[in-house]
Amino acid sequence: MENLRVALDGRSYPIHIGAGLLGLAELYRPYLGGGSAAIITNTVVGPLYLPQIRKALEDTRTTEIVVGDGEEAKSWQTLNQVFDALLKARIGRDTLVIALGGGVVGDLAGFAAAIYQRGVPFLQLPTTLLAQVDSSVGGKTAINHALGKNMVGAFHQPLAVISDVSTLDTLPDRELRSGLAEVIKHGFALDAPFVDWLEKNIDLLLKRDAAALTYAVKRSCELKARVVAADEREAGERALLNFGHTFGHAIETGAGYGAWLHGEAVGAGMVMAAELSALMGDLKKTDVSRLRELLGRAGLPVRLSARGPALAPERLIELMAVDKKAAKGRTRFVLLDSVGRARLRSDVDERLVRQAIVAAAQ
Amino acid sequence: MENLRVALDGRSYPIHIGAGLLGLAELYRPYLGGGSAAIITNTVVGPLYLPQIRKALEDTRTTEIVVGDGEEAKSWQTLNQVFDALLKARIGRDTLVIALGGGVVGDLAGFAAAIYQRGVPFLQLPTTLLAQVDSSVGGKTAINHALGKNMVGAFHQPLAVISDVSTLDTLPDRELRSGLAEVIKHGFALDAPFVDWLEKNIDLLLKRDAAALTYAVKRSCELKARVVAADEREAGERALLNFGHTFGHAIETGAGYGAWLHGEAVGAGMVMAAELSALMGDLKKTDVSRLRELLGRAGLPVRLSARGPALAPERLIELMAVDKKAAKGRTRFVLLDSVGRARLRSDVDERLVRQAIVAAAQ
Repeated sequence: MENLRVALDGRSYPIHIGAGLLGLAELYRPYLGGGSAAIITNTVVGPLYLPQIRKALEDTRTTEIVVGDGEEAKSWQTLNQVFDALLKARIGRDTLVIALGGGVVGDLAGFAAAIYQRGVPFLQLPTTLLAQVDSSVGGKTAINHALGKNMVGAFHQPLAVISDVSTLDTLPDRELRSGLAEVIKHGFALDAPFVDWLEKNIDLLLKRDAAALTYAVKRSCELKARVVAADEREAGERALLNFGHTFGHAIETGAGYGAWLHGEAVGAGMVMAAELSALMGDLKKTDVSRLRELLGRAGLPVRLSARGPALAPERLIELMAVDKKAAKGRTRFVLLDSVGRARLRSDVDERLVRQAIVAAAQ
Repeated sequence: MENLRVALDGRSYPIHIGAGLLGLAELYRPYLGGGSAAIITNTVVGPLYLPQIRKALEDTRTTEIVVGDGEEAKSWQTLNQVFDALLKARIGRDTLVIALGGGVVGDLAGFAAAIYQRGVPFLQLPTTLLAQVDSSVGGKTAINHALGKNMVGAFHQPLAVISDVSTLDTLPDRELRSGLAEVIKHGFALDAPFVDWLEKNIDLLLKRDAAALTYAVKRSCELKARVVAADEREAGERALLNFGHTFGHAIETGAGYGAWLHGEAVGAGMVMAAELSALMGDLKKTDVSRLRELLGRAGLPVRLSARGPALAPERLIELMAVDKKAAKGRTRFVLLDSVGRARLRSDVDERLVRQAIVAAAQ
């Protein structure tokens, strides 16, 4: 088991990473002060992993709340379903909320914990690679609104994160690859040696080798934690974690949510951002190729027609303009100076953006 | 104009108190960084005070959101109505949310600001005495759930509070008196000299004398701020502010919400708590009389039959047992050792509680 600590102003919490952690009672014990727990999970993950958690918590009064699968669960309706269940079970402020699932369950349960009785403690048990390397670090929680994703939420740090890489054995192939896109993002945006490591170990990761996954999750969390600690409320540096996301969000929206998985869209978005960096003279063409090659080996799509009808460059540009990250009318891009060195820029010529989108699809 | 500063760990904010403050553009200016504002108010307060705020903000792009009057506005439905309006108006993270109204609007708008796009800045403009002396200090925000009041919420400090005592001129008499109950509570729980001052000035307060109101609001905020700063998350000392509230909540619930105003129930609850303190040998009978007399002069009811059919002592005891402040099965009471010195106790014999309720009604 690997351990690291995320240090955030006034609060900090540990992340435990390894195989077979969900069943270890001693990992939960430090956080069960109130003697009771409420586990929030969904209909897919619950049946797979609740039994071993029940066993680990057998001395604890436990309430289980199972919500529907998929992005639709990040809704007012589901949140209310959670509050109904918590109140009916007379869950008080001293109960530990446990989020068991991927990013959707983590966001929903984390937000429920943030606002239930003005905030109760919670534990994250992420069961997808995407959640283990990304959403479980940083304290962002949210639900969606009909007029926008993640529009209602809170910053609420967990007491601890337990990332059991054994849960990745049941993850569908496409979701594993989507998670790898965020791992690759951490390397290209922040850490060149990690890119070297990924190039050597990508096949082991795809084979779900526990040791390789443990290292990839740990290094991703370290990189993200370092950035988040420096910029908890996302004013500046934290934006670097959005490498590939300005284009990626536009791809997700343009194709209709669900057509592209988040990581897939980020992967394609990173290629666009890298091509744009090269067009602006900042990044070597050979480094763009390195990114393309690693994404290709991870089985990630790059072409805009990969998940349905191809999106026109014009449509993507339009969608980026309304992205909430647009600052005062100018779209901000995270671009690369070199492998492992991202930088935020808003002085980008729209013609180059169009060229980059076209180049990425070649 | 009086000014004081509430210092809370890592954040602090000013409270401005005085007559005619709502129309002063310079009070808003420091907080209008983003150049736009969203005012959340209700159908009663809006028509009275929006015109002067519009004038003060005439150089600012302003969105007005008017919700229904009354406790029912602290609901999911109204919160969603607020988010719909904010999103339709394309309100971003840099917009200032302004809460204009009493405790309900403050709680609702404060909570909306706490979770809209994971938190936006907000300004409190309380327009009832209760909100000026109580709910505008401390950062508590919430909405109600069908299974309990204030069950969903957040701690979210405003950038500033502007308490314009001129708005109290339009406050119904009964609501003014209800607010005075909380003012009297601050004196009896925390500050004997303030009780002396109140005994001398209660008639001026009832006549809505601006100078007397300004002082009463200021002193109440100072007392509450001191306690809140010492105990932001309500673990210990902050509970002293609940003097009269354990009984008061039971009265409100037992009579059905709305029959008693919150301050009225707290007033009657304080007499019960004081009688209980005397029965336990801690408080002099003459001090119980001082409390009764001051509440009487403020026109506040004490008898349990004052606002409908009398509640049986047994029923109140039953309701207190389910109060969320019940810690590990024992009801906690805030009792007085002397005027201005409250203390938290959970070692209270139920027979004495019954006796105190009966004695209070004499």
